[in-house]
Amino acid sequence: MAYIQQSFSVKFEYRVFFTEKIFDSSNSTFADFLEAQAAEGIRKKLLFIIDEGVTAKHGYLQEQITAYCEQLDNFELVQDIVVVPGEAAKNDLQLFYWLINELEKYAIDRHSYVIGIGGGSVLDLVGYVAAVSHRGVKHIRIPTTVLSQNDSGVGVKNGINYHGKKNFLGSFAPPVAVFNDAFFLTTLHERDWRSGMTEAVKVALIKDAGFFEWMEANATKLSMGDLPAMQQLIYRCAALHMAHIGGAGDPFESGSSRPLDFGHWSAHKLEQLSDFELRHGEAVSIGIALDSVYSFLLGWLSEDELLRIINLLKQLRLPLYHPLLEADEDEDNPGVVAGLEEFREHLGGQLTISLLRAIGRGEEVHVMDTDLLQRAMTMLRDNW
Amino acid sequence: MAYIQQSFSVKFEYRVFFTEKIFDSSNSTFADFLEAQAAEGIRKKLLFIIDEGVTAKHGYLQEQITAYCEQLDNFELVQDIVVVPGEAAKNDLQLFYWLINELEKYAIDRHSYVIGIGGGSVLDLVGYVAAVSHRGVKHIRIPTTVLSQNDSGVGVKNGINYHGKKNFLGSFAPPVAVFNDAFFLTTLHERDWRSGMTEAVKVALIKDAGFFEWMEANATKLSMGDLPAMQQLIYRCAALHMAHIGGAGDPFESGSSRPLDFGHWSAHKLEQLSDFELRHGEAVSIGIALDSVYSFLLGWLSEDELLRIINLLKQLRLPLYHPLLEADEDEDNPGVVAGLEEFREHLGGQLTISLLRAIGRGEEVHVMDTDLLQRAMTMLRDNW
Repeated sequence: MAYIQQSFSVKFEYRVFFTEKIFDSSNSTFADFLEAQAAEGIRKKLLFIIDEGVTAKHGYLQEQITAYCEQLDNFELVQDIVVVPGEAAKNDLQLFYWLINELEKYAIDRHSYVIGIGGGSVLDLVGYVAAVSHRGVKHIRIPTTVLSQNDSGVGVKNGINYHGKKNFLGSFAPPVAVFNDAFFLTTLHERDWRSGMTEAVKVALIKDAGFFEWMEANATKLSMGDLPAMQQLIYRCAALHMAHIGGAGDPFESGSSRPLDFGHWSAHKLEQLSDFELRHGEAVSIGIALDSVYSFLLGWLSEDELLRIINLLKQLRLPLYHPLLEADEDEDNPGVVAGLEEFREHLGGQLTISLLRAIGRGEEVHVMDTDLLQRAMTMLRDNW
Repeated sequence: MAYIQQSFSVKFEYRVFFTEKIFDSSNSTFADFLEAQAAEGIRKKLLFIIDEGVTAKHGYLQEQITAYCEQLDNFELVQDIVVVPGEAAKNDLQLFYWLINELEKYAIDRHSYVIGIGGGSVLDLVGYVAAVSHRGVKHIRIPTTVLSQNDSGVGVKNGINYHGKKNFLGSFAPPVAVFNDAFFLTTLHERDWRSGMTEAVKVALIKDAGFFEWMEANATKLSMGDLPAMQQLIYRCAALHMAHIGGAGDPFESGSSRPLDFGHWSAHKLEQLSDFELRHGEAVSIGIALDSVYSFLLGWLSEDELLRIINLLKQLRLPLYHPLLEADEDEDNPGVVAGLEEFREHLGGQLTISLLRAIGRGEEVHVMDTDLLQRAMTMLRDNW
C-alpha cells in the first residue's frame, strides 16, 4: 500500500525564574530574558494582560510596567495594558473573544509576546488566547498565586471551561518563560495562600516522601504565612511538576496515565457543583483526603500514614470534607460519583485514577468501587 | 539567578496513504490503520464530519461509512454522521461552535477519532475543532480535492478566519493519519481540479526543477482531467510539502521563513478582496505570476524561465491576473499592496517573501519595491 511517512520532533524549552518585585527598575531578570530574544531590525511588541485582583492590590503595577518597558531597547509596550476580571475568567467565552480582539487591535504577531499576570484562571485563559491567535503567539506567564506558581503556571496546559465542563476547550502550548515573583504572594487572601499548598501535598504524596516530611516539619510556618518557607515549598513543588512533565515521556498527555491528577477527579466535580465557590485547592484537598481514605480502605495505605496525611492537611488548615461530596444524584444534577465518568471522558480511554501505596508512592487503578467510595465519604464526614 | 530549566521534545508521526474508494467494503486501508491503534478494553469512538459538497456528489457515502464501520471490532461510529456546509466553512464561528457541541454531545474524548472528509476549508475547520477540544482529540483527514490532497490536507496546520483575517484563529496540530482517495477527484468541478494544481506549480518552482519539467511535459493531460497524471502530481507535490515540513527544522513555524508561501502574500489578500469568489488556487496562480514577473524585473529570473512559468500556468488554464490586484487603496478597503503588511503580521517579525532565482530555486527577500510591484502588475495585465 502506498504511503508517505511523516516524522519529526519539536523541541520545547523554557525556564521558570524565581524573583521578587519583577518590574522594580533595579530588577533585570525580565529585561535580561527579553533582550536575549531580541532580533535585529524588529521592535517586538509586548501585550500585558493582568488579573484585576492583582492590580487591585498592586495599584502601582501598570505604571511600573510602563516605566520598566521604556528602558527596553528592542521591545515596546502596546498602547494599553489590558486588565481582566480574575473571577470566572475561564467561564466567560465573551472574555476570550474580547482578548482575541485586543490581540487583533494591537496587531500582535507571532514574534510578539503576550504576558499574563495573575492566578491560574487568568493564566489559563491568556495561554489559550495566545495559543490559538495566528496559530500561536509567544506567551510569558507571571503567576501571582501559590497554586499557579507551584503547579498550573509552570506547566504546558491552558484552557477555558465550556458548558460548565472544566477545560473543555484548550491546548498544550508551553510558555516561552515563567517568572515566579514571590512578592505577589504577600498580598494573597489567606484562603488562597492556604489552598495553593494542596498541589504540593499532592505531588509529595505520589512522588516524594522527603518533601512530605519537610512539609510536616514546616506546617506551622507554612500555615502562619512565613514567606521563605512558602518560597521553598513552591520551588520544590514546581521542580517536581516540571520534572514529571518533561521527564515522564508524555508531556502532551497522549496516554491515559495522569499521576499528577491525584485527588483531582472528585475535585473537578466538587468545584463545578459548588459553582466555583470552592477554590480549586480546597476541592483538591478534599479530593486528596477522599482518595487517601479510599487507599486506606483498600488496604493499600497504613492507618498511621493516613493519619499523617489527614493531620498535615488539618495543620495547613485545608478542608477535608464538603456536604456536596454526598449531594444527591439525579439526571440534571449528578453528584461527585458521576465525576468519575466525566474525568474519564476528559482524559479519554480507560478510567485511570492514582491512589496511594504509601506516602511518596502513587499507583494507578482503573476502577473505583462505589460502595467503598461511599464508605470513604462517610468516614471523612464522621471522623475529622 | 534561580531558575528551573524545562526541556523536552514531542515526536509527531503520521502517514499519508494513497488509496481509492476508501469505504468500499473490499478496501481495508482505513480499517487496517484503525485496528493497529486498538487498545484492549476500549471501544473507541469515530465521529465523521463531512463536507456537504462531497455528500452531494457521493450520495451513498454515509451509508457506505456506516456499513464499513459495522465491520470494525474495536471502534464504533457515533449515532450521527455530521454534514457541514463546505462553502465558507472557515468563515462561520457559529459552525465552529456547532461542531464543538457535536463533540460534546457524543462525548468524544482524547482516545476517540474525529474524521474530516472534504476540501481544505472543511478540513481546516475540523482540524481546529479537534485541536482545541479536550486540549486535542485525535483527528484523521480525508481530503477530497486536488488542493487538499497535495498541500493543506497533508500538513500540520488548521484554522478558521476571523474578522475577515485568514487563519487568524488556529493551531499546529498534526493529524494521526491522512487518506488521499483519488476517487473523490473524479467528481470535482473543473475549476477545482485546475486550481488545485497551483500548489504543485509553486512547490516545483521553489524546490524541484525536475517536477516543473514533468508538469510541462504533462500539462495537456493534467488540464484535460487525466486521473493517473493527476495522481502522480499529487503524490510528488504532497511528498515535497511533507519533506519540507518534517525536514526543514521548523515544522511549527517559529521563524519568519516560509518558502512554501511563495506567491501567497498577494493571494491571501486577493481571496479576501474578492470575498472568496476567487478560489485559493486561482488566487495563488495570480500570486505566482506576480512574484515571478517581479523576480524577472528584479533581474533574478531569465525571460525564458519567466515565459515557461507563464506558459505552464496558461496551459493548466490557470488565471494570471485579476482587476482586484490593482484595486484602489483606501483606509477602509486596502488593496493588494496592503496585503504585504498583513502577511508580515500573520507570519510575524520581519517581512519575508520568497522570490525566484531560477525555476526550482526560491530565495527570500525582506523588502518589496512598490513601484516594481506596480510594474509587474501592469506587465501581467497588458501582456498575457
